[in-house]
Amino acid sequence: MRPAAIIGIGQTKIDEHWDKSLREIGGEAAFAAMQDAGMDNVDALFVGNMLSSTISGQNQLGAFFADWIGLWKQEAVKVEAACASGAAALRSALMAVAAGEIDSALIIGVEKMTDKAGHDVTSALATAADADYELEQGISFVGLNALIMRRYMHEFGWKHEDFAPFSINAHANAMHNPFARLHEKITVDKFEKSSMIATPINLLDASPIGDGAAAVILVPAEKVVSMPGKPRILVASSASATDTIAVHSRKDPLFLSAAYESAKRAYEMAGITPKDIDVFELHDAFSIMAALSLEASGFAERGTGVQLGLDDEISPTGRVPVCTRGGLKARGHPVGATGIYQVVEVVQQLRGECGAAQVDGARIGMAQNIGGSGATILTHILKAD
Amino acid sequence: MRPAAIIGIGQTKIDEHWDKSLREIGGEAAFAAMQDAGMDNVDALFVGNMLSSTISGQNQLGAFFADWIGLWKQEAVKVEAACASGAAALRSALMAVAAGEIDSALIIGVEKMTDKAGHDVTSALATAADADYELEQGISFVGLNALIMRRYMHEFGWKHEDFAPFSINAHANAMHNPFARLHEKITVDKFEKSSMIATPINLLDASPIGDGAAAVILVPAEKVVSMPGKPRILVASSASATDTIAVHSRKDPLFLSAAYESAKRAYEMAGITPKDIDVFELHDAFSIMAALSLEASGFAERGTGVQLGLDDEISPTGRVPVCTRGGLKARGHPVGATGIYQVVEVVQQLRGECGAAQVDGARIGMAQNIGGSGATILTHILKAD
Repeated sequence: MRPAAIIGIGQTKIDEHWDKSLREIGGEAAFAAMQDAGMDNVDALFVGNMLSSTISGQNQLGAFFADWIGLWKQEAVKVEAACASGAAALRSALMAVAAGEIDSALIIGVEKMTDKAGHDVTSALATAADADYELEQGISFVGLNALIMRRYMHEFGWKHEDFAPFSINAHANAMHNPFARLHEKITVDKFEKSSMIATPINLLDASPIGDGAAAVILVPAEKVVSMPGKPRILVASSASATDTIAVHSRKDPLFLSAAYESAKRAYEMAGITPKDIDVFELHDAFSIMAALSLEASGFAERGTGVQLGLDDEISPTGRVPVCTRGGLKARGHPVGATGIYQVVEVVQQLRGECGAAQVDGARIGMAQNIGGSGATILTHILKAD
Repeated sequence: MRPAAIIGIGQTKIDEHWDKSLREIGGEAAFAAMQDAGMDNVDALFVGNMLSSTISGQNQLGAFFADWIGLWKQEAVKVEAACASGAAALRSALMAVAAGEIDSALIIGVEKMTDKAGHDVTSALATAADADYELEQGISFVGLNALIMRRYMHEFGWKHEDFAPFSINAHANAMHNPFARLHEKITVDKFEKSSMIATPINLLDASPIGDGAAAVILVPAEKVVSMPGKPRILVASSASATDTIAVHSRKDPLFLSAAYESAKRAYEMAGITPKDIDVFELHDAFSIMAALSLEASGFAERGTGVQLGLDDEISPTGRVPVCTRGGLKARGHPVGATGIYQVVEVVQQLRGECGAAQVDGARIGMAQNIGGSGATILTHILKAD
């Protein structure tokens, strides 16, 4: 496989962009990435998106954005894996570069979610779950995660406030990220007193949706020269795995087996172990997911992911810095875009561009993107070279 | 690039399958392809689909089908490019095989369209067009194609009945395809008298929607042994190109420039010219699209695609056999599945399995899959080796 490097990144602030259309926010991130890379054309476009057909009445986002951005005639496609659509689009681009079929790719993760009412968005998000056997019961996506969190608390004896550090760390880090949706420091007290959504998940356990787009430019690594103070950002590995789509079909609903599988393959391919990871952008759609990701990816034993937060090991100065730019919780979660935001943020860390949230000497970073309640999980490892 | 071969095919009859769910029809085609290939597992799954989120409330079809089929833990993803989703999924799989990342892939094209009312389907299909600048005018997808056909007739002086041979040939060939949606021979008189949908497109210019799924198994060519009477079916080339998403943005709305681009690249990669193509499964969503595809792909001069039909050159014994299993017109058009049906049908021709619709000595076949009104077009060339 031909190794690939990321030479450009771009992103929009995540917000309620009622004054900007789907094509405008996607274009904004794409142009920023192309400018960062110093390129005005690419061989192919890969778009990660989940909801444009239901929320914006627009499909075929590959051609849609190729047209808007001016990549005329170039090949373009959309890739979808629910909330893991962004990372799935990156992986598709990696395959095309690795195959030698293309010499440059633009990958956009984009989602426009706030143009419809809340219940429409809740219904649209629920399409990530099993329509026949989960949604038929009337459960929402938050509801499914609430069942998982409740069971985890019961099984391993944690209290709700033990999850607070995930949210507090994310909010603290987002203060230094101008593209984050929320800029507001929180405390354990505030965390405990926030509104209940689906017991035991309250507002500060849950990530906010939003309109947003992020983009990266991928090229063969051999075409990039490493310079002092400006390392090449290599994609050291990429892996994807699946689990049952319905949570109730899993032998153990408290173990993200697709995270375990994809992380294991990613570590092997990169020739590293979890200890080598300097920064981990994980998929904290809900605080319980942060704990489960840490456990399945080899950073904590089963049922102890929460302890890493309580021990202050997840902040930028800790042993396993996570959500260093705010994570899904505070940077925001424009679902199909999230996977690319995570990769952009790992690149920022490896470039040393994160200011007060910078992880000192970060050289190896990992991004993990989850679709549904863990049905599709992709892990990417990047290395500064 | 590591060459790939197709070693298994499967398909369901296209119909109103009200007694079968999305997962059942997709599974049926997948199991048939795996049985045909003599395999019970694959490294990765690629699903081509356009409408499941809007019609069935189900996204994340990669994990969804991996779960249902029993490909547990394997990577899986959905690829979408409107009606070109099937071919786009195949191309994604080809890249992964070519990169050496996987050694086997299952590609499913699947669409469940008849569970909702007609106007819901019309709205869902319209998402292939430009929501902001075409659909806002109130035009449907058939309406857009009607404008193109009307202009073509005006520009090149053809009458409506001149398009009849496309429909007649498709219906005649479908008689020999048990998986086809329609089994009914038609005549010029019947063609001319059928109900008007959007002038000048009548019912027999238009392809019927339907529920259906088709699947193929892809492996590296080096792993397949060619045997007498059982040739290897190689993917000689794959190419994808885009055009503007809105028809009105094109300099010439009567030229499918993405078909031209993708066919040109596919010919070059395969080292052949249009003359070498023994069978061409083109995307006759509307009869006008058959004419435009033939022209843009190098089989006829501009404005003369219709003449090929009038000269009886498109039947299985003609110079350019098209729609040999019924095409979109009579085999049916379950949109995201169509691209895989086309590939399955080319494989059947190269294997010599088409009975009365067999093209004598077919050794090189082409499949061309169109998304929207020509915004995304993929061309694949297969060779019996």
